[in-house]
Amino acid sequence: MNSLSLSPNLEVWFFIAQKPLFLLEAANGQTANVINGKSIARAIRAEIANEICRMKETIVKSPGLAIVLVGGRRDSRTFIRVKLKACEEVGITTYVEEFPEECTEDEVLRVVSRLNNNPSVNGIIVQLPLPQHVDEERIVNFVSPEKDVDGFHPLNMGNLAMKGREPLFIPCAPKGCIELLLRSGVEIMGKRAVVVGRSKIVGLPTSLLLQRHHATVSTVHSFTKNPEQITSEADIVIADVGIPNLIRGSWLKPGAVVVDMGTNQVQDPGVDQGFCITGDVCYEEAIKVVSAITPVPGGAGPVTIAMLLSNTLDSAKRAFEFI
Amino acid sequence: MNSLSLSPNLEVWFFIAQKPLFLLEAANGQTANVINGKSIARAIRAEIANEICRMKETIVKSPGLAIVLVGGRRDSRTFIRVKLKACEEVGITTYVEEFPEECTEDEVLRVVSRLNNNPSVNGIIVQLPLPQHVDEERIVNFVSPEKDVDGFHPLNMGNLAMKGREPLFIPCAPKGCIELLLRSGVEIMGKRAVVVGRSKIVGLPTSLLLQRHHATVSTVHSFTKNPEQITSEADIVIADVGIPNLIRGSWLKPGAVVVDMGTNQVQDPGVDQGFCITGDVCYEEAIKVVSAITPVPGGAGPVTIAMLLSNTLDSAKRAFEFI
Repeated sequence: MNSLSLSPNLEVWFFIAQKPLFLLEAANGQTANVINGKSIARAIRAEIANEICRMKETIVKSPGLAIVLVGGRRDSRTFIRVKLKACEEVGITTYVEEFPEECTEDEVLRVVSRLNNNPSVNGIIVQLPLPQHVDEERIVNFVSPEKDVDGFHPLNMGNLAMKGREPLFIPCAPKGCIELLLRSGVEIMGKRAVVVGRSKIVGLPTSLLLQRHHATVSTVHSFTKNPEQITSEADIVIADVGIPNLIRGSWLKPGAVVVDMGTNQVQDPGVDQGFCITGDVCYEEAIKVVSAITPVPGGAGPVTIAMLLSNTLDSAKRAFEFI
Repeated sequence: MNSLSLSPNLEVWFFIAQKPLFLLEAANGQTANVINGKSIARAIRAEIANEICRMKETIVKSPGLAIVLVGGRRDSRTFIRVKLKACEEVGITTYVEEFPEECTEDEVLRVVSRLNNNPSVNGIIVQLPLPQHVDEERIVNFVSPEKDVDGFHPLNMGNLAMKGREPLFIPCAPKGCIELLLRSGVEIMGKRAVVVGRSKIVGLPTSLLLQRHHATVSTVHSFTKNPEQITSEADIVIADVGIPNLIRGSWLKPGAVVVDMGTNQVQDPGVDQGFCITGDVCYEEAIKVVSAITPVPGGAGPVTIAMLLSNTLDSAKRAFEFI
């Protein structure tokens, strides 16, 4: 490979395609540790599969997860396929309830009600976004908090926020983010953390969860006047913005740890599907500055899915009183 | 008065005793604006009283607030007395449910249930703290979210945290804090705010609420390594620590705005009752640095009570469908 014949960006992409991710570090001559989300997720899935085996052997029961899909969005179908496959692999029984785009809110509520009352279903997820004419808040609030494995019910969110309370479920992406940090040996307590973004399903609950782990948390968002300066003071940076490569190397403190929760489709005529997935952090610049970083893809994504399995298992254990 | 004959501290206290608070500014030769919580609260109470008059005239109904008190704590009795008096003055009907210290959890739950179902009661507050043998979480969660005028129910807290959601009630102290800022002409959007403390009834919801107003919020707490440095970067500082005079002048950026939510009893043999009430901020040092500050007492406290009245009125308006 003659690197001179390629632009710097293409070179990196080519490089990623050729080498396993964990080798990036040495090959780039950087000290950054690439946090391998795929392998961490694999380890978590193995632990979950073991627990489900033990459950089946002991009480002849297994966890069940129901997914409610309204409308035919292609990205939603892809996400659901990934979740179903992950469930199957660890031994979680799945149920899919599909509605056409033009269904009514009441039809969805009736099915959620049935799932709430079905003892074989331990977790219910309503795939978001819903079509405009269906009230997301009403549907999400209608999911039983005891089966809210996405952790999006305001009751679970409130208990996540409140010191001394325990939510039944923590949203999967934030829970996965902490898991990535802990399993990579990153200390959270007393560290300065900046969460860039404050979405109600990722950024906000991640801030709350980091605070529960005793980090000093600042939240940076579109109204923040000097996001670069604030972010550059952080020991831990969590990105949840939805803007590819927003966070440049200059935003990061040398030695910081970065978890990139962004998954942005960026046009790329060089690949078959016409786009590639990139994060919110400019990876090529960041690895020259930070001490550890998650790649996109292969970082936060797989661990988020693993947390959905973990929440479903926890819910089943509670319902079946299986310790 | 010969100031040379007094120690600096005594001098200040003597001075406070002699002059109305709003004169402090000029008399000290400082530019700090003393945010007069008493007068802001008075204005809010007048608005509420007007609305209740209009309600009585229009639909011949008035808001009702029930207070549940368990045990005989003297401070709880004082707080309740203040709340009852404030209700009476604006035309809110009050109900007090008192239990002896040794009552059972079920007895309290039964009364809360009765209040939940009583259409004359629009707001229910359970005076905290409860005796050790009564499960606070269970009681607070049992209050109907539609009557939770303290805003402590996790459902309301979750909806406060989540962007795009609207809680039925915002906790009184945080709501009062924002009211103090807005009525003093302090812009919140885009400003850097530091909340010192993360209690579930003051610090945490204040952080969430400031974020809803688009401040860039950092939360500082006992695990924070450099609280002084972080606090000194803030345009707005909210103190909720419970340690008298913790926040010194050196913690504050020149021109910052400070809301002191602390109410600490400090021994003072010089006064009749043997103690005085001080905040978490060293007021004498702060007024030399900041552009505006709330005193303690007479700052956040009166506005917190006014917000309880406001929440109760809002609840009654919703229940009676009175616009």
